[in-house]
Amino acid sequence: MILFNCDYNEGAHESILRRLAETNMEQTAGYGEDLYCLSAQERIQKLCEAPQAKVYFLSGGTQANLTVIAAALRPHQSAIGAVTAHINGHETGAVEATGHKILTVPSLDGKLTASQVEELYREQVLENDAFEHVTKPKLVYISNPTELGTIYHERELRKLHEVCQRYGLYLYMDGARLGYGLAAKDNDLTLAKIAKYCDAFYIGGTKVGALLGEAVVLTNLELQEDFRYIVKQKGGMLAKGRILGIQFDELMKDGLYEKLGAHGDRMADRIRGAFREKGFNFLVENETNQIFVILRDDQIQKLGERFGYCPHCRMDENHSAIRLCTSWATREENVDTLVEFIKGL
Amino acid sequence: MILFNCDYNEGAHESILRRLAETNMEQTAGYGEDLYCLSAQERIQKLCEAPQAKVYFLSGGTQANLTVIAAALRPHQSAIGAVTAHINGHETGAVEATGHKILTVPSLDGKLTASQVEELYREQVLENDAFEHVTKPKLVYISNPTELGTIYHERELRKLHEVCQRYGLYLYMDGARLGYGLAAKDNDLTLAKIAKYCDAFYIGGTKVGALLGEAVVLTNLELQEDFRYIVKQKGGMLAKGRILGIQFDELMKDGLYEKLGAHGDRMADRIRGAFREKGFNFLVENETNQIFVILRDDQIQKLGERFGYCPHCRMDENHSAIRLCTSWATREENVDTLVEFIKGL
Amino acid sequence: MILFNCDYNEGAHESILRRLAETNMEQTAGYGEDLYCLSAQERIQKLCEAPQAKVYFLSGGTQANLTVIAAALRPHQSAIGAVTAHINGHETGAVEATGHKILTVPSLDGKLTASQVEELYREQVLENDAFEHVTKPKLVYISNPTELGTIYHERELRKLHEVCQRYGLYLYMDGARLGYGLAAKDNDLTLAKIAKYCDAFYIGGTKVGALLGEAVVLTNLELQEDFRYIVKQKGGMLAKGRILGIQFDELMKDGLYEKLGAHGDRMADRIRGAFREKGFNFLVENETNQIFVILRDDQIQKLGERFGYCPHCRMDENHSAIRLCTSWATREENVDTLVEFIKGL
Amino acid sequence: MILFNCDYNEGAHESILRRLAETNMEQTAGYGEDLYCLSAQERIQKLCEAPQAKVYFLSGGTQANLTVIAAALRPHQSAIGAVTAHINGHETGAVEATGHKILTVPSLDGKLTASQVEELYREQVLENDAFEHVTKPKLVYISNPTELGTIYHERELRKLHEVCQRYGLYLYMDGARLGYGLAAKDNDLTLAKIAKYCDAFYIGGTKVGALLGEAVVLTNLELQEDFRYIVKQKGGMLAKGRILGIQFDELMKDGLYEKLGAHGDRMADRIRGAFREKGFNFLVENETNQIFVILRDDQIQKLGERFGYCPHCRMDENHSAIRLCTSWATREENVDTLVEFIKGL
Repeated sequence: MILFNCDYNEGAHESILRRLAETNMEQTAGYGEDLYCLSAQERIQKLCEAPQAKVYFLSGGTQANLTVIAAALRPHQSAIGAVTAHINGHETGAVEATGHKILTVPSLDGKLTASQVEELYREQVLENDAFEHVTKPKLVYISNPTELGTIYHERELRKLHEVCQRYGLYLYMDGARLGYGLAAKDNDLTLAKIAKYCDAFYIGGTKVGALLGEAVVLTNLELQEDFRYIVKQKGGMLAKGRILGIQFDELMKDGLYEKLGAHGDRMADRIRGAFREKGFNFLVENETNQIFVILRDDQIQKLGERFGYCPHCRMDENHSAIRLCTSWATREENVDTLVEFIKGL
Repeated sequence: MILFNCDYNEGAHESILRRLAETNMEQTAGYGEDLYCLSAQERIQKLCEAPQAKVYFLSGGTQANLTVIAAALRPHQSAIGAVTAHINGHETGAVEATGHKILTVPSLDGKLTASQVEELYREQVLENDAFEHVTKPKLVYISNPTELGTIYHERELRKLHEVCQRYGLYLYMDGARLGYGLAAKDNDLTLAKIAKYCDAFYIGGTKVGALLGEAVVLTNLELQEDFRYIVKQKGGMLAKGRILGIQFDELMKDGLYEKLGAHGDRMADRIRGAFREKGFNFLVENETNQIFVILRDDQIQKLGERFGYCPHCRMDENHSAIRLCTSWATREENVDTLVEFIKGL
Repeated sequence: MILFNCDYNEGAHESILRRLAETNMEQTAGYGEDLYCLSAQERIQKLCEAPQAKVYFLSGGTQANLTVIAAALRPHQSAIGAVTAHINGHETGAVEATGHKILTVPSLDGKLTASQVEELYREQVLENDAFEHVTKPKLVYISNPTELGTIYHERELRKLHEVCQRYGLYLYMDGARLGYGLAAKDNDLTLAKIAKYCDAFYIGGTKVGALLGEAVVLTNLELQEDFRYIVKQKGGMLAKGRILGIQFDELMKDGLYEKLGAHGDRMADRIRGAFREKGFNFLVENETNQIFVILRDDQIQKLGERFGYCPHCRMDENHSAIRLCTSWATREENVDTLVEFIKGL
Repeated sequence: MILFNCDYNEGAHESILRRLAETNMEQTAGYGEDLYCLSAQERIQKLCEAPQAKVYFLSGGTQANLTVIAAALRPHQSAIGAVTAHINGHETGAVEATGHKILTVPSLDGKLTASQVEELYREQVLENDAFEHVTKPKLVYISNPTELGTIYHERELRKLHEVCQRYGLYLYMDGARLGYGLAAKDNDLTLAKIAKYCDAFYIGGTKVGALLGEAVVLTNLELQEDFRYIVKQKGGMLAKGRILGIQFDELMKDGLYEKLGAHGDRMADRIRGAFREKGFNFLVENETNQIFVILRDDQIQKLGERFGYCPHCRMDENHSAIRLCTSWATREENVDTLVEFIKGL
């Protein structure tokens, strides 16, 4: 069985393992105050062209999301997200467990638009006589790539930034798969642009070559205040914080992060191409490492006998959409096998 | 500078790193549902002689504590702990952040006694006319070894177990440094005895040879219900859960965990012996990897020029207690250097 | 200006005020443990034909909802409600502030159907491979009358009860306006039937003749356990609990509650009739004390010069739906004036 | 049985009941936005000489405390209080349920001193290397009168204010029994002085003549921001807010509040005097409406046959301290009876 069901089936990129081994018996400070974390932070600040930014290394995506959101909001404030947002549908109510409502808006491609944010804010706050009887939106949550593998373009992100500025909202980007977004063919964002438009975002490690770990970047000074207290309180502060610092120091060096993303995207492109050639349709068009293809149920069953995939949603009586995932670790020969299989469908 | 300030200054035991490297490119299921986690669980069940127990691998100690406690308590219920309890003084209010009060009782040696629990329960519930105006204790939190390096003996643990049974309380042991406790010269507990007396406990990995990770063992079936939901919600479920499973599979194999604990204790014994020979007093007597010794402030300053230590508390005008820590990773030659230094004091 | 904007514009029914005055200088126990609360509980138990039920008097609806839901759910569990549910849209995230997500389903008339609950439960739990990554529904929230003034019929409530039983869900009814529901012309429910089908519900006082206060009825013994602790914790336990007991003792005596509800409904019927005669349409058809009528914007403006109303939603360029409310306190002559005005539209 | 066990055994002062009756059928806006609330706010602003202050009328003391504290703190911040603080020992963990730890300091007379606050702040924050591993104090909670009936003098309050200013802490006074404090013989505080030194406080109504209700006064503009959202979220916003406004409008008129307090204190003085004459000792000396007297157990039993009292704590084998309470409603003839009884002890 070859697994294409997700992008965390393997361990870590070999250079990360090597670095962990090399530094293993060094004695360092704990809780992320070691020199590796510092060095990784400096690399990220440079790539982000944001010397004022602070970087915090957390163990996972849900941890990162709930910590940032809990740190950013007062009790009556809420987060805005697409209905497909990871925080809304895949984190067991982690944000609500910190006390905050998520206000969702419809989305077919996983993206949130500036005008949706504007409309919701007007409806909840500005044009609402009973505004104190609903939560007050304060943070806009987006994922890039989204849960459907689509990406934001600079124009879209800038508009979101503008509407957030207008209404005093924080713009927060969940970058669990950021490497695959930055490497996508139609991408026009960079870390520097993201840092310019977002108050907070995280650079995903777990799905892009690390054993574990996400680098939360807070560009807005307000959000930095006492943030480490909240990381500790929510259980996200590793005693041996260096194991995250070392990994990001490695990922952020010599363009490794981009290279890993590009590999995942290229593998996905080959699979998408194979489906396209055979005339299959996609639930959503995208260019990152997730493929949402629509197949007949019997085709899915056949595929499932040899390849791990992730069921997504039913389309009609006989068809469903499934998700296939590649990653930094996907082997060319496994893609060959899958492409061959697709040709035979 | 040689660090003796804590037991998480280094990375992981070499066999763990080796195993991570060997398994690195295998494809496994995510979220702790892989075969390594299963195998580690089986090893722990066997060592605990508790086939009904379920084992959950979490990223750190605060994460483990807040997840177990949040899962165990209804909103009005509270945890009982010694005033020195890690959840009370070193986790930035993590338990309170899940909504629960910690009721503390005094302790000079870090231990909680059955009679303290009994008395508190009577005071809060049984003999309280206004019982609904205070929280209802439901969980007893102990650490073994304690935050002061002392350990529970079987008799004490059994008594705690009995009082908990009598009043319907859960008994939960924080085993962040359990390896050092089990290896202590005066220890009479085993994993099997702990599993027999406790409803829940965790076997600490971070401080005993792992890169990160704690193995939460739930022996009480009630606590197992839907526990994984809560692990996910609190951000403790790693996508690549296998990296915890692999580490514990290794630690629990061939007595490695005990060996690592024994090394740490032996290193500490040498240091304790050196202090004792010079006539220094200890804040508390213990036989595990933490040493709480009382020194003159000028001696502490001198020591601090060459060795990392952890300030603990002031004793009088001229003396303070400091903590020195050894671990699985402590090098014999570094202990030699320290012992030499102590001789010169 | 005559107010028809809500059903809490006036104080309390005169017999309540009289009774408060009569009993004013009596000395009673505090915190709802007085004889008036006991008597009111007994009346409600009898009317509900539920001797096992416990009744708790709380200060308001949001307080009642958040207390019941917080008491009923473990951290990972969620409530299901119509998107129009009061807890979803009018309580400033009170339920989320206790840590729980609300899962919403669409509804045009404010009602939730058994099949919606079933479908959602299947989707979230039974047919979800990643069930631990979403919240687990545990409580179904309905309002009767709904926020749109519609009511549940016995058949509907029984079906909801059945689906809840099937999946281990609690059925909870918010009865803020219950008096107006029970008195509606097409109603076939009684307190006894509600008590039979629901695990918990509350009989609204604030909107049906009381100064303040809601009577939470817990028919399910599980929910009764330690409930008063949680009432206290959430700030819902009045020191002078008797002022709620006295009011409900009065409301539940000699059919007063039903009479007050019937008055409100009759007043609303007259207004609905007037609109109907003039050919106006309603956003939703109902027979309780809320009227959701669609008017031209200039008509609304004219109406607003003389009568208080509540804006509801825009229908098209020139029309909006507004809400008009009657209550136990609505004066016949004020309805005459409004009816006259409607005739002139 | 004559009750002296607490100060909420009766209903409300007659002028309050009269005013409620007179205004009963007036139509007003809901949720505390009526003219009575406005008028009561103005009276309080004037008495406080604080035109910038905002006043919010909440249903009870626990509600007031948890709402103010939840509104004031970020997740990692905590409240400082005496170990005897009502929020620590009599509110079922209400503050912790909003996510915040309470840091307590010892107190024999219920009071907190500026130097205790200073020392705690230094210990937790300024002189703590691991400051991020403990909560950060942000609010100082005091009660006046305290839970032991003692009061703060201006000098003490000013010092608390100064230390709070120095460290950026909010000073919050729980004034559940404020009327009895302001009327005490040795009192030198006024509402204006309290408003000057405190960022927030509440003027207790429930225990000083109202049916229910506390007036939360926020003098610090920071705390006012969006406060009503949080009142609503926590269930403290009454739909018929006017019933609180009307009561405080009456209490704050023509010195009624002070008069009611003075009556309670005078009744208590008579009882204290009777005990003193007989040579009984007090647990704590005070001049407000609570009396903490030490009696032999057989005396307590005898007293308990005729008078309601509140057990407080055991002193030795044969003696305990009990609490007796007077109030605005205490009848002179009941005090006569008790005094007569005391003479006979």
